[in-house]
Amino acid sequence: MTQLETYITENENRFLEDLKGWLRIPSISTLPEHAGDIRRAAEYAADQLRRMDFEQVQLIQTQNHPLVYGEWLKATGKPIVLVYGHYDVQPVDPVELWESPPFEPTVRGDNLYCRGACDDKGQTMLVLKALESLLEIHGTLPVNVRVLIEGEEEAGGESIDHYVRAFPASLRCDAAFICDTGMPSKEIPALVNGLRGIIYTEVAVRGAKSDLHSGTYGGVAPNPLHTLAIIIAGLKDAEGHIHIPGLYDKVREASEQEKAFWHDDPLHLNEMLLEEMGVSQLTGEIEYPPLERIWARPTLEIHGISGGFVGEGAKTVIPAIAKAKISLRLPADLKSDDVFVLLERRVMELAPAGVEVTVRKVHGGEAVMVPIDTPPMQAAASALREVFGKEPVFIRGGGSIPIAGLFHDILGVPVVMMGFGLPDDNLHAPNEKYSLSQFYKGLRTVARFFEKMG
Amino acid sequence: MTQLETYITENENRFLEDLKGWLRIPSISTLPEHAGDIRRAAEYAADQLRRMDFEQVQLIQTQNHPLVYGEWLKATGKPIVLVYGHYDVQPVDPVELWESPPFEPTVRGDNLYCRGACDDKGQTMLVLKALESLLEIHGTLPVNVRVLIEGEEEAGGESIDHYVRAFPASLRCDAAFICDTGMPSKEIPALVNGLRGIIYTEVAVRGAKSDLHSGTYGGVAPNPLHTLAIIIAGLKDAEGHIHIPGLYDKVREASEQEKAFWHDDPLHLNEMLLEEMGVSQLTGEIEYPPLERIWARPTLEIHGISGGFVGEGAKTVIPAIAKAKISLRLPADLKSDDVFVLLERRVMELAPAGVEVTVRKVHGGEAVMVPIDTPPMQAAASALREVFGKEPVFIRGGGSIPIAGLFHDILGVPVVMMGFGLPDDNLHAPNEKYSLSQFYKGLRTVARFFEKMG
Repeated sequence: MTQLETYITENENRFLEDLKGWLRIPSISTLPEHAGDIRRAAEYAADQLRRMDFEQVQLIQTQNHPLVYGEWLKATGKPIVLVYGHYDVQPVDPVELWESPPFEPTVRGDNLYCRGACDDKGQTMLVLKALESLLEIHGTLPVNVRVLIEGEEEAGGESIDHYVRAFPASLRCDAAFICDTGMPSKEIPALVNGLRGIIYTEVAVRGAKSDLHSGTYGGVAPNPLHTLAIIIAGLKDAEGHIHIPGLYDKVREASEQEKAFWHDDPLHLNEMLLEEMGVSQLTGEIEYPPLERIWARPTLEIHGISGGFVGEGAKTVIPAIAKAKISLRLPADLKSDDVFVLLERRVMELAPAGVEVTVRKVHGGEAVMVPIDTPPMQAAASALREVFGKEPVFIRGGGSIPIAGLFHDILGVPVVMMGFGLPDDNLHAPNEKYSLSQFYKGLRTVARFFEKMG
Repeated sequence: MTQLETYITENENRFLEDLKGWLRIPSISTLPEHAGDIRRAAEYAADQLRRMDFEQVQLIQTQNHPLVYGEWLKATGKPIVLVYGHYDVQPVDPVELWESPPFEPTVRGDNLYCRGACDDKGQTMLVLKALESLLEIHGTLPVNVRVLIEGEEEAGGESIDHYVRAFPASLRCDAAFICDTGMPSKEIPALVNGLRGIIYTEVAVRGAKSDLHSGTYGGVAPNPLHTLAIIIAGLKDAEGHIHIPGLYDKVREASEQEKAFWHDDPLHLNEMLLEEMGVSQLTGEIEYPPLERIWARPTLEIHGISGGFVGEGAKTVIPAIAKAKISLRLPADLKSDDVFVLLERRVMELAPAGVEVTVRKVHGGEAVMVPIDTPPMQAAASALREVFGKEPVFIRGGGSIPIAGLFHDILGVPVVMMGFGLPDDNLHAPNEKYSLSQFYKGLRTVARFFEKMG
């Protein structure tokens, strides 16, 4: 057993306790009432860096939530790796569906349940603990490291976007490393070589000057909820085709290798999708393989519709205002701002007369595609192979990590996306969890990745 | 000045105070947490009857909220009038739009603002005060009276429906009188000779077994909110046409007189509709006059859509379940149960594969058409003419008072619907109000109506 392995094994429990302490802080970035928790979660991360004698450890103030920064640059002549993570989490509603309190870390079997257990406190913490382990046994790191942890990933990530664009020199590096992705299963180690971007919007419809009684006015009154239904049904049909002129024009052609992987599905990922969702059939564009649909096709989803009455029983109200949260996932080379313009134009076209419709951009992020033949990607693949005992696969992610595209475009470095989440981790949903064995294996893999990078 | 007029004038303030006391009780029938308030509001009404020495005053227990009953049957040889009202009110959300607290009666100008000020505590109270005034000055009433006040009008009215069907003999009468309607303006006294029925439903869609992340599953996951949009857009188009096969087949042909009134619109009610709603154009079936659309055509409205995330900011969730509250207003001779079957069939037809859709009936009520040439209707018209100094018009109401149809069908009596609400009373909406001058004039009109009935 190597010295590294011994150290990690002996400290697993302490690592877990440090994660639990972080998880107990309900750092929900989209809810203003959690601003204090956000700050506490940031301080917690900064403390972790200070304990490892990182330098320049600080909370960088932004327009919204602070960034946590720290650096260790004493490995002369070695590459600099920029480590990214985020300390903010998603809201917890519907809270009644949680089996244990959302901010009380609870171990059941191999899993640690808590909001943020995986996304992204668990995955960020394992990187910090990999660095700590290396420092403890060697007294030094095999590479130089900058750590940048944001608090708005679940809220659009505008502040880090501004920071990276404004101060790229302060983040100078040779590779970026993001631990915020997953593997198809515990047995299939994976690296992500592509992600979709996103444009998240709110469509608001205003009808009459106040809520109306459907008995008195039903027949002549504008109904903003009905308008939203007309618009939404016009944006995407029941077969998953999005009817936004121009949307599909710029979708980048995939390699033959990727196409074959999607088509043949050698890992039987389609079956896993069915099981994870608990459904008997997949929806969407039947003419594309399911993996292509979630990884490489633009998709449009409705996240919520407000307005009117949704309580128990009946209220015969025609609401004055209704709003829908609508987002699109955008594969390379669709740009979020361009798609926003196309979407807005189409919504206006679909809006019937007699209502006032507005489309507001909530946030956007760009897709990213990373070459797989760079030294950092190969180091990551090698570390995975060693710890998991299997050849890793290169997959795409359907989700959006806008910061990946930003690092790639602004810092001009390869972005390694290696994470240890599992499909049943319930990200953004009740009962989010993280596999403890993935946490510990991930920690070992990341430590080996840094060694190989050195 | 008549003795009646003098008494009413001297007691106006006390009448108003008695109404305010009732209004302060937040008797929202659809919200279980107000069960205690419901009971207090019922007791308050019973007290009013007891003070007038009504007999058999009692709260009749039901499966849900109690009925308030009292009778005064000492006018030998005179007809019996069954007086109906309701003591329950609508919910108050969005509460932030109220200019004064929803359950604190507040006078501004000629208006009394409060939830229930008009619908229906204000209108019920004026009938009770008309009876009180007659009793005080004559020591007797010109007719026999039964009073029946329910507490579920805003929640479907199932209990009174069961009661009337089960015990019609206990409600034996010669005419029913309902004060729960309005006038087109203060200058246009009106009697209602027709109302639409209603079928109120909830359409529920279930997709995956739990909420999903739109990045991971967007492209293959069922989205119940999108399904609802497809269904709703399929039920009613942007031009107001309802696409439910068979729905329009049984709509009763209106008289030539009514058609001419709708078409010519001599009272310029169309303009009032525009102003009340604060819109520049009316929606709906362009091939029918607006008055026909709201009074005599079936209409379909969406009242609320739940599921997913509607808070501040962004959450990229695909909800497992979404629900829509959908109702139809039904002119004679459409029957609510028949239409429910047609609606359910159509919803199932519109539902795409891969989701589980159910349609639940929340409540239903039947349309009613009353002949205008009966003695009670003529007595009401005469009272209106006398107090308002103008010939009253016969109009329909677009809303639903299922009890009217029930009295008509089960008790077999003419139903007089004479109310004093105004179009800008904000029924079911924030800042509900009742005109004080309408309250006092209504009181006088109803007193005269009873005298003429005697």
